[in-house]
Amino acid sequence: MWFEETHNDFFKQAIRVEEKLAEVQSPYQKIEVYRSKEFGNVLVIDGHGMLCDKDEFIYHEMMAHVAMCTHKDPKRVLVIGGGDGGVAKEVLRHPEVHVDMVEIDEEVVKISKEYFPHIGDWENPRLNLTIGDGIEFVKNCQPKQYDIVLVDSTDPEGPAEGLFNRTFYANVFRILKDDGLVVAQGESWWIDMPLHKQIMGVMGEFFKIVMPYRFEMYMYPGCNWNFILASKFYHPTADIILQRADLIDGLRYYNSDIHKASFVLPNYVKQELGDLYKW
Amino acid sequence: MWFEETHNDFFKQAIRVEEKLAEVQSPYQKIEVYRSKEFGNVLVIDGHGMLCDKDEFIYHEMMAHVAMCTHKDPKRVLVIGGGDGGVAKEVLRHPEVHVDMVEIDEEVVKISKEYFPHIGDWENPRLNLTIGDGIEFVKNCQPKQYDIVLVDSTDPEGPAEGLFNRTFYANVFRILKDDGLVVAQGESWWIDMPLHKQIMGVMGEFFKIVMPYRFEMYMYPGCNWNFILASKFYHPTADIILQRADLIDGLRYYNSDIHKASFVLPNYVKQELGDLYKW
Repeated sequence: MWFEETHNDFFKQAIRVEEKLAEVQSPYQKIEVYRSKEFGNVLVIDGHGMLCDKDEFIYHEMMAHVAMCTHKDPKRVLVIGGGDGGVAKEVLRHPEVHVDMVEIDEEVVKISKEYFPHIGDWENPRLNLTIGDGIEFVKNCQPKQYDIVLVDSTDPEGPAEGLFNRTFYANVFRILKDDGLVVAQGESWWIDMPLHKQIMGVMGEFFKIVMPYRFEMYMYPGCNWNFILASKFYHPTADIILQRADLIDGLRYYNSDIHKASFVLPNYVKQELGDLYKW
Repeated sequence: MWFEETHNDFFKQAIRVEEKLAEVQSPYQKIEVYRSKEFGNVLVIDGHGMLCDKDEFIYHEMMAHVAMCTHKDPKRVLVIGGGDGGVAKEVLRHPEVHVDMVEIDEEVVKISKEYFPHIGDWENPRLNLTIGDGIEFVKNCQPKQYDIVLVDSTDPEGPAEGLFNRTFYANVFRILKDDGLVVAQGESWWIDMPLHKQIMGVMGEFFKIVMPYRFEMYMYPGCNWNFILASKFYHPTADIILQRADLIDGLRYYNSDIHKASFVLPNYVKQELGDLYKW
């Protein structure tokens, strides 16, 4: 039995799974969980592989710690989406940081607590979980509230579609402090350059620094994926990278050398991005 | 119509192809060529995707230029395998370098000249092609002949099996000058860590520096792949990286920042490799 995902009609991949553990149709999306010998439990939303036990640490560490170590003194972090709890957990490894998390789909949180209990840090008193629409949340939020916003969304279809447009990023810019920054799931220069460039362009309408960085995930088509960091002030590689994450025990992917290396672009990517790359 | 490849019984991937252009059974292996809209022509050997037009430059640039820019003054380079001609072509972009190439399967060269004519630089007078067994070639070669050996082989099955053992590397070490180095196709820490570690171990029996580096290829399962650089003298990242490749026009992947970044290891890889990583 294989869980198979097709992307763009020219590339597909599949991983072997043993059984389906759960299937829930929420008001927003279809959520499935499979069990796999090699990858552990696998979360699937609307037919797209979201994460698996084996390598979830890569996504979550790379979204959280790159942002946390670019900002010089982050205290208030907003996570949009991220219902599995992994991004918030990684942020909370940094002491004295408070996380507001806004997930639209309560069923994702329930499923994650049951089938991926080690991923979240749900009982942490510095975590404030709201079940609600992230788009509405940023619209109604007071200006200059946050040091960092992390947009841990699915692809731009279904409930996440509104997390990729200029109205949303106008509000993200507004609620960030003057030295604030955002990291978003940025699709992939590897498997879908046009979509990646589109997101770069939207973020670039507001932020003076917009830079993609790479990581890998078994669950994503082509396995190579990007986050995009957009910043009002701090630069993720030109400034000295804070090595505070190197001091955190138990990180399995992130270190300060990986931080710098993940931002390096092959020639063809530089050429494709052109002025969309604001560094 | 899909060209599908299964690896290790837990991961498979497929790319859409339009038609089969060629199929040849040579004395050594089955060679196929497919045409694909997205990837251009695709070379398949014994059922494994070897390369495609779309991203062959990544493999070939990363094997050739990392070695060429680690060595301070390379003049004589031996390419074992590499029958598509791509690695030799990239080496030959560096002026005054002479390449000996030993490919066991003449049919691979013929097919490559016909279906991938832009990949090779076959008429270059600085290229000396021998059709023969690379294992025999290094056994019979005089000592200290080469600055660089590049082992551009298929997986360790069929004719390439003998390119992964200690007898072969004893000879590679012997035919390299005192400041020589070798780069080999190193399988993948991402999709097959045990095999990757095995190759690291064999190379580490002879060389004082043994370091893997990463790149990506659509044709390979999981798309993330490794070369391994083993060196008698020059260090690929601690020394100043020569920027001579940055001066070559038309490189689409390699630059000196990519050179350095590709050697950076995530924490879990460092931990897995342990003493096999000799830097």
